[in-house]
Amino acid sequence: MIIVLKPHATEADAQAILARIEAKNLKPLYMPGVERIVLGAIGDERVLAELNIEADPIVEEVKPILSKYKLVARELHPHDTQVPLGNTQIGGERFVVIAGPCSVESREQLMAVSKMVKANGAVAIRGGAYKPRTSPYAFQGLGVEGLKLLKEVNQELGIPTVSEVISPEDAEMMAGYVDMLQIGARNMYNYRLLEAVGKTGKPVMLKRGLSATIEEFLLAAEYILAQGNPNVVLCERGIRTFETATRNTLDLNAVALLKQKTHLPVVVDPSHGTGIRELVIPLSRAAAAVGADGIIVESHMNPKEALSDGHQALTQDLFEQLMRELKPFVAAAGRTL
Amino acid sequence: MIIVLKPHATEADAQAILARIEAKNLKPLYMPGVERIVLGAIGDERVLAELNIEADPIVEEVKPILSKYKLVARELHPHDTQVPLGNTQIGGERFVVIAGPCSVESREQLMAVSKMVKANGAVAIRGGAYKPRTSPYAFQGLGVEGLKLLKEVNQELGIPTVSEVISPEDAEMMAGYVDMLQIGARNMYNYRLLEAVGKTGKPVMLKRGLSATIEEFLLAAEYILAQGNPNVVLCERGIRTFETATRNTLDLNAVALLKQKTHLPVVVDPSHGTGIRELVIPLSRAAAAVGADGIIVESHMNPKEALSDGHQALTQDLFEQLMRELKPFVAAAGRTL
Amino acid sequence: MIIVLKPHATEADAQAILARIEAKNLKPLYMPGVERIVLGAIGDERVLAELNIEADPIVEEVKPILSKYKLVARELHPHDTQVPLGNTQIGGERFVVIAGPCSVESREQLMAVSKMVKANGAVAIRGGAYKPRTSPYAFQGLGVEGLKLLKEVNQELGIPTVSEVISPEDAEMMAGYVDMLQIGARNMYNYRLLEAVGKTGKPVMLKRGLSATIEEFLLAAEYILAQGNPNVVLCERGIRTFETATRNTLDLNAVALLKQKTHLPVVVDPSHGTGIRELVIPLSRAAAAVGADGIIVESHMNPKEALSDGHQALTQDLFEQLMRELKPFVAAAGRTL
Amino acid sequence: MIIVLKPHATEADAQAILARIEAKNLKPLYMPGVERIVLGAIGDERVLAELNIEADPIVEEVKPILSKYKLVARELHPHDTQVPLGNTQIGGERFVVIAGPCSVESREQLMAVSKMVKANGAVAIRGGAYKPRTSPYAFQGLGVEGLKLLKEVNQELGIPTVSEVISPEDAEMMAGYVDMLQIGARNMYNYRLLEAVGKTGKPVMLKRGLSATIEEFLLAAEYILAQGNPNVVLCERGIRTFETATRNTLDLNAVALLKQKTHLPVVVDPSHGTGIRELVIPLSRAAAAVGADGIIVESHMNPKEALSDGHQALTQDLFEQLMRELKPFVAAAGRTL
Repeated sequence: MIIVLKPHATEADAQAILARIEAKNLKPLYMPGVERIVLGAIGDERVLAELNIEADPIVEEVKPILSKYKLVARELHPHDTQVPLGNTQIGGERFVVIAGPCSVESREQLMAVSKMVKANGAVAIRGGAYKPRTSPYAFQGLGVEGLKLLKEVNQELGIPTVSEVISPEDAEMMAGYVDMLQIGARNMYNYRLLEAVGKTGKPVMLKRGLSATIEEFLLAAEYILAQGNPNVVLCERGIRTFETATRNTLDLNAVALLKQKTHLPVVVDPSHGTGIRELVIPLSRAAAAVGADGIIVESHMNPKEALSDGHQALTQDLFEQLMRELKPFVAAAGRTL
Repeated sequence: MIIVLKPHATEADAQAILARIEAKNLKPLYMPGVERIVLGAIGDERVLAELNIEADPIVEEVKPILSKYKLVARELHPHDTQVPLGNTQIGGERFVVIAGPCSVESREQLMAVSKMVKANGAVAIRGGAYKPRTSPYAFQGLGVEGLKLLKEVNQELGIPTVSEVISPEDAEMMAGYVDMLQIGARNMYNYRLLEAVGKTGKPVMLKRGLSATIEEFLLAAEYILAQGNPNVVLCERGIRTFETATRNTLDLNAVALLKQKTHLPVVVDPSHGTGIRELVIPLSRAAAAVGADGIIVESHMNPKEALSDGHQALTQDLFEQLMRELKPFVAAAGRTL
Repeated sequence: MIIVLKPHATEADAQAILARIEAKNLKPLYMPGVERIVLGAIGDERVLAELNIEADPIVEEVKPILSKYKLVARELHPHDTQVPLGNTQIGGERFVVIAGPCSVESREQLMAVSKMVKANGAVAIRGGAYKPRTSPYAFQGLGVEGLKLLKEVNQELGIPTVSEVISPEDAEMMAGYVDMLQIGARNMYNYRLLEAVGKTGKPVMLKRGLSATIEEFLLAAEYILAQGNPNVVLCERGIRTFETATRNTLDLNAVALLKQKTHLPVVVDPSHGTGIRELVIPLSRAAAAVGADGIIVESHMNPKEALSDGHQALTQDLFEQLMRELKPFVAAAGRTL
Repeated sequence: MIIVLKPHATEADAQAILARIEAKNLKPLYMPGVERIVLGAIGDERVLAELNIEADPIVEEVKPILSKYKLVARELHPHDTQVPLGNTQIGGERFVVIAGPCSVESREQLMAVSKMVKANGAVAIRGGAYKPRTSPYAFQGLGVEGLKLLKEVNQELGIPTVSEVISPEDAEMMAGYVDMLQIGARNMYNYRLLEAVGKTGKPVMLKRGLSATIEEFLLAAEYILAQGNPNVVLCERGIRTFETATRNTLDLNAVALLKQKTHLPVVVDPSHGTGIRELVIPLSRAAAAVGADGIIVESHMNPKEALSDGHQALTQDLFEQLMRELKPFVAAAGRTL
């Protein structure tokens, strides 16, 4: 149920109504806008009806929520959400480039690539400390040691960091080390994990599952917002199809459709989306053109020695070329880099 | 590394070698066979080499493990594993039928359907207490209340139960209520959860992910076995394809292939695999024919009122027909029902 | 439009109505049943209405056709169709096994494998003379020379033959050499070819396209029936999915669903459906159990030297094993082999 | 076999060698370059060896062809091919926009939309006269009548036309009416049709099959080039995946990869690739950014009354917006519109 208050309604008016909603064990939502305060109430429709909120003189209109994903839909929230990341935002005028290694491997490795991508215009560093690997015998990441290195990079270079969380019990702890928590594609349906990152209030990058429909993807985001955390960035990273010439099939249709259906920012991961270093630049250009709010790419000073995903990491030369080639397309999209 | 001991080797000989393996922080495996004791050592190949185990006079042969999934492959373990479930086993002569509701909804609902399916030959009851639902607003299961009802059914009817675990922190607790822990399709890549159920030592039913390859599926099982838990049953439950006439595409190719590649039992879930009540019986017959060790089906006394997945649940009439129709195919496969 | 005539209606009554339908350039259908004569009229609904057929005293009822595929749906034709193939039928009590090489390579090769599979119970010989190959440089089949060899086998061994047609202009000519025309998976959407085989009146085996939905498959059959040829057998041969461990994913869901939706016989091709010789037997058993009317398998006396698809062809030993293993499952399905 | 001639070799030298190749029933290829004449010989490797071409003093080097697709690979032909279309080319500096209705419906409909898209910068008109429809009862196109209308548009407006051919026997005839023959997605594996359009020598637009791999797509083009017709444009038009929110999944990975693997031009069809009018513009921008040589879009003056695919056709307003929005992205790609 969406409750639009009259123009002169105050925050106190809103709180009174929210208290009534909460007293019935329904989920209250407070959405102050520039012109009006809008409230939401989510839960059993019959209980909602008992509240008889339409009768309140401060209420202008009460309407049902049609989308299955009530909090992430543009229906309730037509303006683009901007998610903070360090001193910048994702979803605003700037087309953000987040870069870094697949895995944090050592202080030297992380610092070198972070300096390089920052010097070339990256706004944040990505790097995995906990790696969900297909084989239990593969390198699983440096764990807390990796998080400490990310914190060091953040403090030394003054650049925010993004890293993947793979267990609900780690969410709070990781929020102390990094600026944005990433949910990987394999955990998109891990609803307990979504709830855990929702509770931290920390910005979250949610990657689309390997074969998740767009509706499932939006509902996964809804799990996070339903915990009171509005700072979610969606990431299209390729879906699994019959095609084997590329690692995944980057679904740019989905990006265009998501931008219409939700107010959340959408970024693209062309590294996993193609799995081939030589395809990262053209697909990054396409991401800017299709309307994405940024990209997240893997980069490594020496990809041949990377402990994971070396074949898709950009070398320094290619990263520099990426930023050069992106520029006119970002400008064509009316944004800055 | 696979270490085959000489015929006269004792358990004490084996333990001595295992201690050396463990001292190097490698994973030791003890696999006593009818004729020989076989040991395994999993970890960094260079460290393994330092052990110079070939030189031990009690060792007959040392060979590398070729499969990526070392513990689940038939390579190391040619005989079929039988996983205990109450008084019966999965993977033996008996073709097992596990049945019950999608969700545990109430004592009456669960008890009624449990009695019915038990009377018709089901060897275990399935029922969800924690439901991983696409929408955060959908019925999420009764939680501990549901587990208590499953325990009651177990004690009153003397039949084992299977229920899904969705969070690592719940694994130990749930092991106290049910006889087999299920990992759902959405959590097949949730490696922390796999490790958690591995640590409980409890029998596990591992469902194939929506778009998991057979190799990824076997490696997910490997995560559980690598924690020292050999009691894993694989469950094919349909994959996601372009076809929309059925909910999923049941992949019986995978069942035949899995039976060749692994010693673990394989069961089939035709309820989720088709999503259509009328297709459950023919696909159950096909599961028996293709070589599966059993099926797990959804059943409900009144599917129209089910809180989840009612359209694919078998009524009493259909469940009785299922058991009747299965009989000759199970016999043709040289097994009993 | 379905037109049910009154019980006492004669064939002459029916012909009078059919003439009126034809005079309006609509497609008339004559479907005499045991109890009633049923007629059909397919075409522009407004023109149909002008005929005012309800007013005819010999007409009991006029109703619209709801299925998109009007001629292949069970709606209009509840009883199973039996398609003649030499002295036998597909779709009757007998579970048919059609076998032979992927390609006709030589007289010796074809004769040897034909004798072997016939001796073991195959009811028809398959063999490609025109091969639609992915590469223009691959062996394209012997052409008319291959057809002549199939005719020789037919005459010498008294067994019917099936062979693929790949061009509309060949349909009539091929109908003179073989007993059943096959439309391959790659040509399922080749509507001109479907119309051409429809016009020959010859029995047709229509294979499902690589990524054809069940509805598209049934509509492809409808193209053939709409030319007046009711003798169509549907063949499920595996669909293209993300899984690469098998060549295709055999979709037995589709077989069960097709048997409910259409009166046409359905056979299964486990050779292409799996692409792995060792999986052909278990999937053939499953095909019998799921309700298929038969299988079509590739067999070769010396698969290592086959000019195409050798890895999935059954050797003599495996073919004999197939027939032995099939027997109890075919019996369990209430049919004969 | 690739045969590189010495710098001073003349065309007569080349013809002498080609004659020797042809005399052995091998396929000779003549590929004069700016610096060198390169010849090709395709066929049985043993016969090729017998020719002993290395020994010819005019031959500098003989090397094997590694690609499966010998004529379409960049390996043999590093420079971009430009395919003529009326007075323009596809594959050159200009980013081409081809537009028009799904089906030619009437003179008025075709002329109106053709004038509109031409006035806005389209370089060619698309329009189907023969429509391969899923249902035999759907509108199948105007046939020759439609071709005549396309010819009229061509003569009256001086703009080239593209139309789909669905039967080998129509290829020659259609070549007399239109400027480019289109092979639709459903006929990509229809090798006889590919050969037929190859023989006409007319420019061909080859659409990727619904679930065709990139290798299969290139080999389909190879079928056309192998008939001596070098004028092939590849068209990515979306593949079939599990996603149902869009009609198909436009695979821009494929476009970037194709541009690396082949010298043939590649265009994108965002109308079929998305199936949603509102997504056509963002995906067209992305097509320009990823490196495509143009787009082909459906447009209709009154989409609600279109006989086919109305939901994805651009109205005049949207077509004008498309051309406006494309401009900066085409410029960013270093091309002209």
